[in-house]
Amino acid sequence: MEEELLMIPGPVPVIPRIREAMSRPMIHHRGDEFAEIYEGIVENLKNIFQTKNDLFVLSGSGTCAMEAAIGNLIQRSNGRGRTEMACITVTNGKFGERFKEIAERYGEDAVTPAHFEWGQPIELERVKEAVENSPRPKVITMVHNETSTGILNPAKDVGNLAKKHDAVFVLDCITSIGGDEVPVDQLGVDIAIVGSQKCLGTPPGLSAISISDKALDLMRENPSRPFYMDLLAYKKSLEKRQTPYTPALPLFFALREALEVISEEGMERRIKRHRILSKAVRAAATRLGLSLFPKLNEVSAYSNTVTAINLPLANGITDEQLRGGMRKRGVIVAGGQEKLKGKIFRIATMGNITGREVLRTIEVLEEVLLENKVIEEEGIGSGEAKKVLSTML
Amino acid sequence: MEEELLMIPGPVPVIPRIREAMSRPMIHHRGDEFAEIYEGIVENLKNIFQTKNDLFVLSGSGTCAMEAAIGNLIQRSNGRGRTEMACITVTNGKFGERFKEIAERYGEDAVTPAHFEWGQPIELERVKEAVENSPRPKVITMVHNETSTGILNPAKDVGNLAKKHDAVFVLDCITSIGGDEVPVDQLGVDIAIVGSQKCLGTPPGLSAISISDKALDLMRENPSRPFYMDLLAYKKSLEKRQTPYTPALPLFFALREALEVISEEGMERRIKRHRILSKAVRAAATRLGLSLFPKLNEVSAYSNTVTAINLPLANGITDEQLRGGMRKRGVIVAGGQEKLKGKIFRIATMGNITGREVLRTIEVLEEVLLENKVIEEEGIGSGEAKKVLSTML
Repeated sequence: MEEELLMIPGPVPVIPRIREAMSRPMIHHRGDEFAEIYEGIVENLKNIFQTKNDLFVLSGSGTCAMEAAIGNLIQRSNGRGRTEMACITVTNGKFGERFKEIAERYGEDAVTPAHFEWGQPIELERVKEAVENSPRPKVITMVHNETSTGILNPAKDVGNLAKKHDAVFVLDCITSIGGDEVPVDQLGVDIAIVGSQKCLGTPPGLSAISISDKALDLMRENPSRPFYMDLLAYKKSLEKRQTPYTPALPLFFALREALEVISEEGMERRIKRHRILSKAVRAAATRLGLSLFPKLNEVSAYSNTVTAINLPLANGITDEQLRGGMRKRGVIVAGGQEKLKGKIFRIATMGNITGREVLRTIEVLEEVLLENKVIEEEGIGSGEAKKVLSTML
Repeated sequence: MEEELLMIPGPVPVIPRIREAMSRPMIHHRGDEFAEIYEGIVENLKNIFQTKNDLFVLSGSGTCAMEAAIGNLIQRSNGRGRTEMACITVTNGKFGERFKEIAERYGEDAVTPAHFEWGQPIELERVKEAVENSPRPKVITMVHNETSTGILNPAKDVGNLAKKHDAVFVLDCITSIGGDEVPVDQLGVDIAIVGSQKCLGTPPGLSAISISDKALDLMRENPSRPFYMDLLAYKKSLEKRQTPYTPALPLFFALREALEVISEEGMERRIKRHRILSKAVRAAATRLGLSLFPKLNEVSAYSNTVTAINLPLANGITDEQLRGGMRKRGVIVAGGQEKLKGKIFRIATMGNITGREVLRTIEVLEEVLLENKVIEEEGIGSGEAKKVLSTML
């Protein structure tokens, strides 16, 4: 049977040379070879992040790194009765809200939400108000590429706001870094996070986090930092080119190979590829009469790594018919999450995906839409996709 | 060049069929195939743990699971000014103390140490005193197999004490389960933890944790549980045969294969093998005139998975000469940690190690001891090891 094509926003398909890197024998995690692997990974990732800040690789998923950011920054009120920190959580989707949920575990009274509906764009004016009305706006969290809705949020503008108010800016770049232009330092990001199983094109299980000196200084004031995710422990261990706790070795072998693949392609070409692939998906969907889910304003944009499309429910097709039909044909696309379940579907174009996979996805989508009488003929969407994909050359 | 032989207490060498399981394509982590893999792993591990409790697999190392236990149990004092929990930390080595360090992050005032020197046995009378003198002894932590010193601590006795005082008993079985007899429920353990890269013989990056209803009930009272390690979220997701956050897929593929290897060997034979291998190391070391590091009493024993040996410093050999000499010959053994650095060395016999690897280790040890004039002829230690190993048949 043919392998399933994963077009979900992670885990993404992993090409054989990266998967096979994992089957080598274990090494001593405190020996020279691991030190060299880790150091090489860190240097490569700093280049991709475009940052001069410290950067660590955690043996845990993107959520682990999100909690590392919050848990190290927000000082619990142990013995003091009040969390001495304000955390402005800018949210317009599931992953933005995850930051809020995490922050609430560390100090419910610290959280000041700047909330927008899922799929709505961030309005800077309201974020500005939240920051200005907060007594001590020390932390601002936002998701760069909101995977749940397919929106790219305005990192630069919120970065400027953070700078102006001397706040630490935490940006979840889990599904943007490696596939889109994310110049971390230039954007004014203090803490940036990427996940392994997204645009880097490697298996799930690792995340990387970069941290400014300003953020590290705040963490030094916090005695109740988490332990496994203690970023000061990561910093200390990195001086010996080690991780504080046993690293998930095979995933490091894979990540090293994935970074080699990225360096062979070149970041510029890679970002261009991601942009064209997502543009092809958007163009095909629109040509097929489907509408994109996100609402945009002047500071937001469509995601360049995942496209959220409204299910054409008015045409009588259900989520199960659409995604189930595609699954039967070997293509897995993502559904809506939580309140968007049954309302949208999402096609990711992350990692080492090529035009071939995008085309196959669109063709299968057309087959299913035709079968369900949403469209009357095949080839129109894929024709549109082909046109866009041809600009890759 | 010949591959290095890792005789450290994790990461252990991983046999090819387990490593190669990781090179297969990714799958959808919310699909049926992953659900079946996860369910199978959980059922297999419950058998190995000999528990009827819930069991979850975390995408994080053993330390991650240790923090999951503590962080979910010990309610932070947010807004209340005092941690409403006592945590008796029974320590006689580095990993026992790790529990204490973790607990201090969650509530320094909660920690009541029952401290013994590294390598000294646990005295039950003093643990009993600590429990009885503590106002609310809700949690007792201990390490079963203290890897830093090669001691097996009295799980059954401390389990009885916990039961008597209605305390939750958290036992780090990271380096005992899979290689030694650990009947979790029979020992009165509420929370038991194993690491993937130890006696289970699979790569690092995963840990498993079993939890009693009593412990789960306490966690339900705690609103400030960690997020990535939230065990109630793990419980809820397990009902759908999923993990709450993206699992490290390749490590799950490997763990499934490792559990298949264990089931083919059978736990009884596996435990016997571990016991004979460590007995062979102890016998060889003693015969070579070396002394074992742990001091025992009537309730403690030598570890059956790692042997801690005093460096024969009086004979003029240094740590670097001994371990460096062995490393040059392709055998990696562990040194002492922290205060034991340069004083002991440790030979692990965990996972799918066989008599052949133990014999090679002893032979190389003899070569190095001879080279450094600690012994006068080779073959005495390995002869002794062979005698013990022959009882495996």
